[in-house]
Amino acid sequence: MAPEPSVTLRVLGEDALIQRLCASLFTGADVLSGPGDDCAVLRSDQPGIFRLLKTDCVVEGVHFLASTEPHRIGWKAAARAVSDFAAMGGGQPREALITLIVSPERSVAWVEEVYRGLRRCADHFGFVIVGGETSRPPAGCDLAVISVSLSGTIAESACRLRSGARPANGVWVTGRLGRSFPTEKHLDFVPRMEEARWLVDRLGVTAMMDLSDGVARDLSRLAERSGVGYRIDETALPRTAGATVAEALADGEDYELLLTLELEPDAAARGEWAQRFPGLELTRIGDIVPLSTGDRERAGGWDAFQTAS
Amino acid sequence: MAPEPSVTLRVLGEDALIQRLCASLFTGADVLSGPGDDCAVLRSDQPGIFRLLKTDCVVEGVHFLASTEPHRIGWKAAARAVSDFAAMGGGQPREALITLIVSPERSVAWVEEVYRGLRRCADHFGFVIVGGETSRPPAGCDLAVISVSLSGTIAESACRLRSGARPANGVWVTGRLGRSFPTEKHLDFVPRMEEARWLVDRLGVTAMMDLSDGVARDLSRLAERSGVGYRIDETALPRTAGATVAEALADGEDYELLLTLELEPDAAARGEWAQRFPGLELTRIGDIVPLSTGDRERAGGWDAFQTAS
Repeated sequence: MAPEPSVTLRVLGEDALIQRLCASLFTGADVLSGPGDDCAVLRSDQPGIFRLLKTDCVVEGVHFLASTEPHRIGWKAAARAVSDFAAMGGGQPREALITLIVSPERSVAWVEEVYRGLRRCADHFGFVIVGGETSRPPAGCDLAVISVSLSGTIAESACRLRSGARPANGVWVTGRLGRSFPTEKHLDFVPRMEEARWLVDRLGVTAMMDLSDGVARDLSRLAERSGVGYRIDETALPRTAGATVAEALADGEDYELLLTLELEPDAAARGEWAQRFPGLELTRIGDIVPLSTGDRERAGGWDAFQTAS
Repeated sequence: MAPEPSVTLRVLGEDALIQRLCASLFTGADVLSGPGDDCAVLRSDQPGIFRLLKTDCVVEGVHFLASTEPHRIGWKAAARAVSDFAAMGGGQPREALITLIVSPERSVAWVEEVYRGLRRCADHFGFVIVGGETSRPPAGCDLAVISVSLSGTIAESACRLRSGARPANGVWVTGRLGRSFPTEKHLDFVPRMEEARWLVDRLGVTAMMDLSDGVARDLSRLAERSGVGYRIDETALPRTAGATVAEALADGEDYELLLTLELEPDAAARGEWAQRFPGLELTRIGDIVPLSTGDRERAGGWDAFQTAS
């Protein structure tokens, strides 16, 4: 069922491309989980500690606009990768490498402001920028790209993969979904690091990921990795003010946590959550079911090669 | 002496930009060397072992052409970062993350061929591709970028920085310099990993780096990090067939090793080198001298923001 090699990425789609590329990659004695999860998970030299690696990028005209304040671009570039660390169960990022591709005609001030945003995120989450690379687009192209690679650690006991969801688990999300672009949440969000740590510690999370491409697509990925199906109640979706159900399902860039729980949180746990994270909703949106009785289609969401900018 | 913030990157230049950005970055208890060396060097949990981190990228129209065979692009993208691992004294890359930015109209076959080249380099040097990120340029822009982040290790005893050069050390290079683009060496070079390990083991290297931006610029960087000057004999420069002295000094992308040695290698060491690396020259091109009596200017070479493509 392999497509013709001349097929374009737009036709194949991002998930199918990644599946093809992964077929012959990503094996090694120290690799516990390669691509297909929020971070790569690796054995470390310390017992009980896993290493985490993640790379992510933002592209002008796709993830931010030429008019976006550059310090917010820097924050977003780093926070996207931190969000993936959070989604593993609250992994601690330790070192960052920055790749900056920018035209020689950009101002020094613009780059310094991007770095101010990167540093702000590094200081907030306790990691250090240890190196980078600067390059430029070819003449005549004013594209800017910032790519952030993070390395860090997580306790083996806290580490949660996408593959742990089981039938009868509840499907939950933090916060509200949809309209991240018009509200500019995508530029200023604070990765759910503390929330992820609390959830793993207190509620026995079975699987977790961050919501970057819309819950429709991301839940499908989680279900696929877990070998299960799901049913969600669209009316239960916590929506950003003004967002439609379709927007909550498919807009993307929510940077909330999507997780599955074996047990319903009791009143004490709910009270503790409300006290620790005031105003932040924790909502059950559906259930994990056996593959044979549930959904696992792609009901929309962001695809790097198929979604229009 | 800070330039006006409205100054462009073209006016400031790459090295000055990096100096400005680094002024407020890159501190941390585990960071032994941040940017300004070929790799970031970090403490590990294993005694006697340092961790190394490096990110590097190739951009279409700058580092390769639209017509370049994609498997060679993949090889080059990974080999550039491996060359930096070699330059630390033969560091072992272990895991790679790949960021691929490519238009939806590119063929699946093109991407698969890029990955075949990446994998070929990974297999050759013993590392594993553990994850990545795919994104796209904005509509109307057909730019392709491949960024490779490597993590790995090196024995503390083998690790060489740019900062170790001392007056009276000889300045040496491997191979021949210049005309890497017209000869296409830049697409197929094999990073000098074994050579770097042998040099550190046998010849007591005091400082080392790889030659990516031309020996004129790169030796100036090494001298600056070491707080020394240098004198080179331009007639001694080992030149690629057909290359002028100016090309050997400044073309860039040689991916040879630039190193400083305390002692002249004896006849036995020279014989061993010739046997281990047949046909590969090891040439003394000059001397490290006190800063007050030597050169340390930039005599040309590649600058990401100042050199024309």
